[in-house]
Amino acid sequence: MKTISSKDNAEIKNLIKIYQNRKARNESNLFIVEGYNMVEEAFKAHVLKHVYTLKEEKGYKNQSIIARELMDKICDSVTPQGIIGLCEKPNMTHVGNRILYLDRIQDPGNLGTLIRSARAFNFDTIILNNTVDLYNPKTLRSSEGNLFYISFIERSIEELKKDGYFIFGTSMNGKVLEDVTDCPKKIVLILGNEGTGVSHNLLQESDVNLTISMNNNTESLNVGVAGSIIMHHLAFNCK
Amino acid sequence: MKTISSKDNAEIKNLIKIYQNRKARNESNLFIVEGYNMVEEAFKAHVLKHVYTLKEEKGYKNQSIIARELMDKICDSVTPQGIIGLCEKPNMTHVGNRILYLDRIQDPGNLGTLIRSARAFNFDTIILNNTVDLYNPKTLRSSEGNLFYISFIERSIEELKKDGYFIFGTSMNGKVLEDVTDCPKKIVLILGNEGTGVSHNLLQESDVNLTISMNNNTESLNVGVAGSIIMHHLAFNCK
Repeated sequence: MKTISSKDNAEIKNLIKIYQNRKARNESNLFIVEGYNMVEEAFKAHVLKHVYTLKEEKGYKNQSIIARELMDKICDSVTPQGIIGLCEKPNMTHVGNRILYLDRIQDPGNLGTLIRSARAFNFDTIILNNTVDLYNPKTLRSSEGNLFYISFIERSIEELKKDGYFIFGTSMNGKVLEDVTDCPKKIVLILGNEGTGVSHNLLQESDVNLTISMNNNTESLNVGVAGSIIMHHLAFNCK
Repeated sequence: MKTISSKDNAEIKNLIKIYQNRKARNESNLFIVEGYNMVEEAFKAHVLKHVYTLKEEKGYKNQSIIARELMDKICDSVTPQGIIGLCEKPNMTHVGNRILYLDRIQDPGNLGTLIRSARAFNFDTIILNNTVDLYNPKTLRSSEGNLFYISFIERSIEELKKDGYFIFGTSMNGKVLEDVTDCPKKIVLILGNEGTGVSHNLLQESDVNLTISMNNNTESLNVGVAGSIIMHHLAFNCK
């Protein structure tokens, strides 16, 4: 088994770039996951190419051992576990009946949280429209490995409408969510940017825009929370 | 108006400490808010003692102007606005009918999100049991100023039960949330640590433990999401 101990090693330098830099991830088609749970999920999803560990770990074919200081140089988690995995971005084509369309979500924690909730509430397909990178380390961490069970595709709202999807937008003055009791079979839920919400054009293309009931003095909810409340309602409070 | 330009100034050094360090906030009873919105909310809540700005701003009695590099030294926001406010921790005694009890929540973003959702869903009182600091800059930021409308108190579950509160815990195998259609007038909702959930003792003291329906393959939700879904349900889907 290979052991790497120099911080000038080209492989280590490359890992740091892939970890830190979206452009490097796009060009190489690679990304990095941290910790045993994520490495295990990447393995099950057939995207794991190589693992880097502090000591020998059973069960991985392609494995290198690296020094603790190099591990710390690659990842910025506060309490990094002794394993990272280099992965190849998966190619996904499945298009499910419940699609989450994320319009310019910028916070990696919010994106990760929405991926986690999407899986819990049976939205198995996500479209990312100018969002933060799916493979950003913070996104991966807050998704808790659920991204490997979601199909990420590219598709316009126009195409989805042609394919028979019913489009729910979200706005501050739409139809009250709690009054929605029926849900079409094929739906798209659009969530918008943290500061500005769903873009005007998309709101106009929607069939119905939804609003979550809240205290009159409150302006808005965190987008991860709002999206999760709506997905939960459509999954379990509707027919 | 005073202008401060030296990074060795004792007042600046003190601000940095208060911003970075929970112990310094506890000892001084002070905390720092960033940006126009938060400073405005602190002012309305009568806790603003002093503002520090890059240029003169109308409307503030106690104001100092500081150099941009000092402002950047004090705060770590990625895009700091040109204003911060030094505030005194408020003394709160109001005890509402809907209380959120947070058991060892460790992530400042989660705490801030729960404060924001609590206000939106009419939980006006929060108890923090060994959580991350309420006045952590990240908590303040993700609360979006809603913390000034919440009463933070200390109280044990035992005392609350004596005072007639009905206690909802949260667990993975409790009563299905969507089946709950009645909600007592005086309630406490307990949410637990990100990794380990609500502590065993507290679950045993609860009158009912709630579980959110989700996909069978999913283990859990982000605690900010889970808490918000339950608060929303109790506020708008129950009598």
